[in-house]
Amino acid sequence: MARQLHEVGEFELIAAVTAGLGELPSGWLGPGDDAAVVPTPDGRVVATTDVLVERQHFRRDWSSAADVGHKAAAQNLADIAAMGAAPTALLIGFAAPADLEERWAVEFHAEFVAEAERAGAAVVGGDVVRADQIVISVTALGSLEGRLPVLRSGARAGDLLALSGPTGASAAGLAVLRRGFTAPRAAVSAHRRPTPDYEQGPIAALAGAHAMIDISDGLIADLRHVAEASEVAIDVEPTLLEVPAPVVAVSAALGGSDPMTMVLTGGEDHVLAAFFASSDDVPAGWRVVGLASTGSGVTVAGSPYVGDGGHRSF
Amino acid sequence: MARQLHEVGEFELIAAVTAGLGELPSGWLGPGDDAAVVPTPDGRVVATTDVLVERQHFRRDWSSAADVGHKAAAQNLADIAAMGAAPTALLIGFAAPADLEERWAVEFHAEFVAEAERAGAAVVGGDVVRADQIVISVTALGSLEGRLPVLRSGARAGDLLALSGPTGASAAGLAVLRRGFTAPRAAVSAHRRPTPDYEQGPIAALAGAHAMIDISDGLIADLRHVAEASEVAIDVEPTLLEVPAPVVAVSAALGGSDPMTMVLTGGEDHVLAAFFASSDDVPAGWRVVGLASTGSGVTVAGSPYVGDGGHRSF
Repeated sequence: MARQLHEVGEFELIAAVTAGLGELPSGWLGPGDDAAVVPTPDGRVVATTDVLVERQHFRRDWSSAADVGHKAAAQNLADIAAMGAAPTALLIGFAAPADLEERWAVEFHAEFVAEAERAGAAVVGGDVVRADQIVISVTALGSLEGRLPVLRSGARAGDLLALSGPTGASAAGLAVLRRGFTAPRAAVSAHRRPTPDYEQGPIAALAGAHAMIDISDGLIADLRHVAEASEVAIDVEPTLLEVPAPVVAVSAALGGSDPMTMVLTGGEDHVLAAFFASSDDVPAGWRVVGLASTGSGVTVAGSPYVGDGGHRSF
Repeated sequence: MARQLHEVGEFELIAAVTAGLGELPSGWLGPGDDAAVVPTPDGRVVATTDVLVERQHFRRDWSSAADVGHKAAAQNLADIAAMGAAPTALLIGFAAPADLEERWAVEFHAEFVAEAERAGAAVVGGDVVRADQIVISVTALGSLEGRLPVLRSGARAGDLLALSGPTGASAAGLAVLRRGFTAPRAAVSAHRRPTPDYEQGPIAALAGAHAMIDISDGLIADLRHVAEASEVAIDVEPTLLEVPAPVVAVSAALGGSDPMTMVLTGGEDHVLAAFFASSDDVPAGWRVVGLASTGSGVTVAGSPYVGDGGHRSF
């Protein structure tokens, strides 16, 4: 029978988890002391914190422990990339019920560490505590490698809006899981394990991106953040948007709802939206889908988008 | 009637909380973007994460919202100081039930920010989510200002053990609160609002400390971490330890228990223990209370300490 956390003990669990972390480079200090030391090449660090709560942000019957570990790392690493920075380190606060199976925690952490490594980052610290439900708080740090950060506030009238990948597939997967299905696999997998291309953040920064944001709340909702911060209007041209095949399939299966709704409002795809002065600046693999102009607010094909365009926490 | 969080909305709450943060220095980026940017003078950042859970680490009937905010900041800032670093920034993951009073969250954050400022740090980011109970995850960052970090592993045989302040008062306060009392005030206050002297971390580092640790789990428990990491034996001389007046008073009120138990095992005082080559190196205001030698383990007046010497999470 699988052991539960209260039978394991905090230090044994931390030892089991940190044993998989591997050697850190010279000058680094990982778990085992009061704090972690993270050298960065240019004297600045980019840092972000996100919290995942069981039943609020994930369900254990819809996502495996490894899925949750993957997402917990990915969503924070994507925030670092959205600044134009390269992820360097993660810290994790892991709160869980005493009766959580040890295996869940170990599988969570293994994939959490693996996703960090895929992004070029190391897990350098954390805390493990008891709570009534699973609450996972992640802090990601990153390096700007001598560049200026790419902010939400830098978009200018005349800039082209480009996306590093398609949106909507995660929402399609969530819609499927909500109805008790696990297919199409591509949609479910997009929801369970988003695969941000972290390198596109620094690539967009080097290409001269004026503004950038990680699409986590939904395309319209996140573009509204950019429009507000940059004091511009943003128009999205829906004919330019990629509609992923699983989004089409799921929308059809749900009684013929418009797939564009998922593309425009679905969250958690963790692709990047960035603004460039000209099409020559747009990096390879990115798709131009809209335009910034003088004014305010976000429109779709010139018309205001009806609906709130995203989700909220409280 | 006080509003509850679900009536406020996440963005309004964040706006209310961040309005009190003040202007950040040039080159910094605080809340409002995907991540925070924290410039550090020497290209390295020190980072640590701790989690506080309601009913596990604090009780709302024993501590005010401001008390909890104070402690959430202080315990992380103290970890930074224990590396010999100066605190620079805090990030916070704040998970709370939807029916939590808005006032509690606002008062918590106000004192959280105030304590950060006392330590010379700024609150640069965070996340607010809904959960079944209050779970507060804090990440603190710090700068080594060109120095090497002071680790747990650097104590050497022959080093003097010195403390930056007395231990035991927080445990005395907790014992009082557990029995339903709120006096002596000095004890209760020590438990509710620890007051680490953050500057002593860099001061000890500049004075040449070989090893350092924040006393959070209890003197004996934390010295065991140093003994293990440094591969030395540590002997504490109890006649050299300061026994705070409230510890004496509370021990007497509890039927004459030995006050030294609280001094040796009480947690959450957040004073620093450091190891120095000679008494000339010990900074002003620090008290020599023991000695490192060849061997292993922690002894008190040459004898093994009976009892586990601290508390654990699971």
